Amino acid sequence: MREITFDLTETITTLMGEKKYATLRDLLSTMNAADVATVMEDMEREKLPLLFRLLPKELAAETFVEMDSDTQEMLIQGFSDQELKEVVDELYVDDAADIVEEMPANVVKRILRQADPETRKMINEILNYPEDSAGSIMTTEYVSLRPNMTAEEAIKRIRRTGIDKETIYTCYVTDDDKTLKGYISIRTLILAEEDDRIRDIMDDNVISVTTTADQEDVAQMFSKYDFMALPVVDKENRLVGIITVDDAIDVLQEETTEDIEKMAAIVPTEKPYSKNTPFDLFKSRIPWLLLLMVSATFTGLIISKFESALTAVICLNAFIPMIMDTGGNAGSQASVSIIRSLALRETEFADYFRVIWREIRTALLCGGVLALATFAKVLLVDRLLLGNETVTMTVALVVCLTIAFTVLVAKIVGASLPMLADKLGFDPAVMASPFITTIVDALSLLLYFAIASTFLGI
Amino acid sequence: MREITFDLTETITTLMGEKKYATLRDLLSTMNAADVATVMEDMEREKLPLLFRLLPKELAAETFVEMDSDTQEMLIQGFSDQELKEVVDELYVDDAADIVEEMPANVVKRILRQADPETRKMINEILNYPEDSAGSIMTTEYVSLRPNMTAEEAIKRIRRTGIDKETIYTCYVTDDDKTLKGYISIRTLILAEEDDRIRDIMDDNVISVTTTADQEDVAQMFSKYDFMALPVVDKENRLVGIITVDDAIDVLQEETTEDIEKMAAIVPTEKPYSKNTPFDLFKSRIPWLLLLMVSATFTGLIISKFESALTAVICLNAFIPMIMDTGGNAGSQASVSIIRSLALRETEFADYFRVIWREIRTALLCGGVLALATFAKVLLVDRLLLGNETVTMTVALVVCLTIAFTVLVAKIVGASLPMLADKLGFDPAVMASPFITTIVDALSLLLYFAIASTFLGI
Repeated sequence: MREITFDLTETITTLMGEKKYATLRDLLSTMNAADVATVMEDMEREKLPLLFRLLPKELAAETFVEMDSDTQEMLIQGFSDQELKEVVDELYVDDAADIVEEMPANVVKRILRQADPETRKMINEILNYPEDSAGSIMTTEYVSLRPNMTAEEAIKRIRRTGIDKETIYTCYVTDDDKTLKGYISIRTLILAEEDDRIRDIMDDNVISVTTTADQEDVAQMFSKYDFMALPVVDKENRLVGIITVDDAIDVLQEETTEDIEKMAAIVPTEKPYSKNTPFDLFKSRIPWLLLLMVSATFTGLIISKFESALTAVICLNAFIPMIMDTGGNAGSQASVSIIRSLALRETEFADYFRVIWREIRTALLCGGVLALATFAKVLLVDRLLLGNETVTMTVALVVCLTIAFTVLVAKIVGASLPMLADKLGFDPAVMASPFITTIVDALSLLLYFAIASTFLGI
Repeated sequence: MREITFDLTETITTLMGEKKYATLRDLLSTMNAADVATVMEDMEREKLPLLFRLLPKELAAETFVEMDSDTQEMLIQGFSDQELKEVVDELYVDDAADIVEEMPANVVKRILRQADPETRKMINEILNYPEDSAGSIMTTEYVSLRPNMTAEEAIKRIRRTGIDKETIYTCYVTDDDKTLKGYISIRTLILAEEDDRIRDIMDDNVISVTTTADQEDVAQMFSKYDFMALPVVDKENRLVGIITVDDAIDVLQEETTEDIEKMAAIVPTEKPYSKNTPFDLFKSRIPWLLLLMVSATFTGLIISKFESALTAVICLNAFIPMIMDTGGNAGSQASVSIIRSLALRETEFADYFRVIWREIRTALLCGGVLALATFAKVLLVDRLLLGNETVTMTVALVVCLTIAFTVLVAKIVGASLPMLADKLGFDPAVMASPFITTIVDALSLLLYFAIASTFLGI
C-alpha cells in the first residue's frame, strides 16, 4: 500500500509547484481519506493548509480524522474560525471527541466555540466518560425507532434523519423514556412488508453494554458475536449511544499492540513505533531495563555465593547460560500463551488449577526430552568431542536433572503469575518473558547449585 | 461473559434431565449462537444431538458454525442425511467451506453429497484457493447491481435476492461480463431518490483485492479504511466474491495470536490455548526449546574458553547474568516493536536505515543511563555494602562499558533481524525475544571478555 502513496506524494508536490489546483482537486477527490492523510503527513508543513482547502468538504473532514494529532493541531492553528466550523460540522461526534482529547487547551476552546451547541453538549458528554470505557468510544448519533412504527414509517424516518448518523445499518428501538427495547437491522426493515410493526419484526434479545464497561471487553464482544454495532446504555437501561465495528477494530488493534509492548518490557506509548522519537523510545524502554537489571543482580549474588563450588568444579560454569536460557524460554512460552488466552477472554482465574495441571504435564514432557538431549549432548560433545575430562557422568547427570526441574518450575511460575496478576486486577501482560526470565534465572541457579552440591558433594 | 454461560450449562442440564423440551427450546431461542455453541461444547457429548435438534433451524446453523471442529464432526456423525441437508442449506457458503476444510474425507463426502449442486460448486471454488489467501475467506454470495438500474429497482432486487446474502449493506455494481464498476451502500440507496440511476449515485473508486492476496494484508485494510466489506476480483477484474468485516476481525485476531506465539518461541497451533492437550502443547513448544538450547551451548563454549580469565578475576562471573539479561531485554524491546510495526504495515524494509539510526540513538540514551546506574551500583553495593574487595574501580569500569556496548549491539541486532527476515520472505515474528536473546547472549559475553582483557590484562 505505501509504495502507491509514496509515488502520489511526488506527483502532488509537482502539481502544487505547477499550481494545477483543479487537477489536484480532481485527483484528491478520487482518493480514500486514509490515503490522503498519509500523503499529507508526508508533505512539507507549509503546503498543508493549501492542499487541505482543495479537498471537498466531506473528504476534508474524513481526512482530518485520519491524521495524527500533530498535523491536526498544525492545521487548526492555520484555520480561520469559519474553516474550523466547517470541518467540525462535518465530523462525527465521537471523532470530534477523540480529536479534542488530544489538543492543547487553547485549541480545545476554539473547537468547542465553533461547534453548534448540540454538538458541543455531545462532545462534552463523551469526554466525561473515563478513558478506556465504552462511553469514551461511543457516538451519540444513532437512529432510534419506536415499537409501534410500521416498517414504512421507519424507513421514512431513516431517510429523514439518517444522513448524519454514523451507522444506520442497525437501528435501535426505544420507549418514550429512551429505554432500550430491541434492535432491527436495515436488512430486516428492507425485507419486511411495509405495514409490519417494528415491535413484531424487531429482535428483542438485544445485547448492550453500560457506559462504564471496559473498552477491551466490548471490542472482544464484537469479535465473538460478529456485531456491526453495539448499543451503550446507562444504569437505567436507557440508550445513550452506540459503538460501531470500525471503532471496535481500532480498540482491538491498540490493545493488542499495548499487550505486545508490555510483554517485551516496554511502557506503551500513544504513538505508533514509526512516529516515536529516540527520546520517546528511551522513556518507554528505560524503566523496565533498569528494574530488570537490578533484579538480575540477585542472580549475580547467587553466583557469588557459590563461587567456591564453581572454583571447585569450574566446568559447571559453562552450563549456566544454557540452563538460564532454557528456563526463561520455557517460562515465557507458558506465560505468553496464558496472557493471550486471558486477553481473548478464553481463560479466566476459575480455570487456574486446570491450567496449572496442564502446564505440569507439558513441563514433564518437555523437561524429559530436554533432559535426555542434554545428557547425550554433554557426554558426546563436551566430554568426547571436546575432550573436557572434568565433565564426568555425574556432572552430566546434575545438568540434565537441573534442566528437567528448571522447566517444571519455569512452566508453573510462567503460568501462575499472569493468572494471579489478572485476579488481583493488574495487567497480566507485564508478567511475560522479561519478568519471568528474571525470576526463573534465580530459581534455576538455586536448583542447579542445590543439585550440584548433593551429587558432587561441594 | 463466561460466568453467565456457566450457569446456563447447569440450568440446561437440569432441564434436559427433567425432559422439559419446550422450555429448553424457548430458552435457547433467546440466546446468541456464539453462547449456545459455548454451552454445547461444555455439555456431555451424548446429550448434544438431542439439544441441537431443539434449536430453531436458523439458530442451529449459526450455532453449528461457532462450534469447534471436534464437536461439529461428532454432530455430523450423528445426523441423518435429511438433518445434515437442513443444516448445510442454512449455512453461508464461506462458513460451509471452512467446516469442510476441517473434516475428515468421509464426512466431507457426506456434506458435499447433501449440498445442492450450486452450493457444492461454490464450496469447491473457495476450497481451491490457497490457504491464507483472500479467496479462501471470501463468500461467493453477494448482491450485485447493474449501472443502469434505478434506486427503486435496486432496492426491489435486494428484497428479492437479499435474504440469503451474507451482507447486503454494500452492493457491488458490475457490467454484464461481471467486471467490477463500483459500489453503493444500502445507506446511499435508501437516502437516494427512487429514480436516481445507480451509475450516477454509485462510488466508482472501488478498492478491491485479488483472490490470491494475503489474508493478513486484506484484514489490515479493513482496519485502515474502516470497510464493512471488500470485493474480491480475479485477474480480469471480474467480481468473484466479497469478504465481510466479521471474517476480517477473525483473521486479525488469529494472525496476532500466531505472531505472539511465534514471538514466544511457540510453533502456532490451530486450536486456542484452552483446547490444547499437554501433548499438543509439548509438540508446539519442544522444537524451539531444543533449538535454542543447542544455540545456548555456544554461549557455554565462550565461557569455557575464558575459564582462565574467570579464575583469575572470579568476581567477573557474578556480573554475567545481569549483562546477558539486560542485553536480551534491550534486544527484545527493539525486535518486538519492529515486528508489531511490520505486522501493522506501518514500517517496511525501505525504512531500514531510518529505523536503525533511530535505534542507535535510543541505544545510546538507554546504554548511557544503564552504564551509569551499573557503575554506581557496582561500586556502592558490591564494593562498599557487600565489602567485596576484588571489585575494583577497573572492574566497575569494565562492567559498565560492557553494558553500554551490549545495549547498542542488542538494539541493532534486535532491529535488523526482523526487517531482514521480512525482506527475505520469512516471518519476522520468529526474530523475537528468545532468538535475539540467544544471539545477544553470545555477543555480550564476547564483548565482556574483550573489554575485560583490555583493561584487566588477563
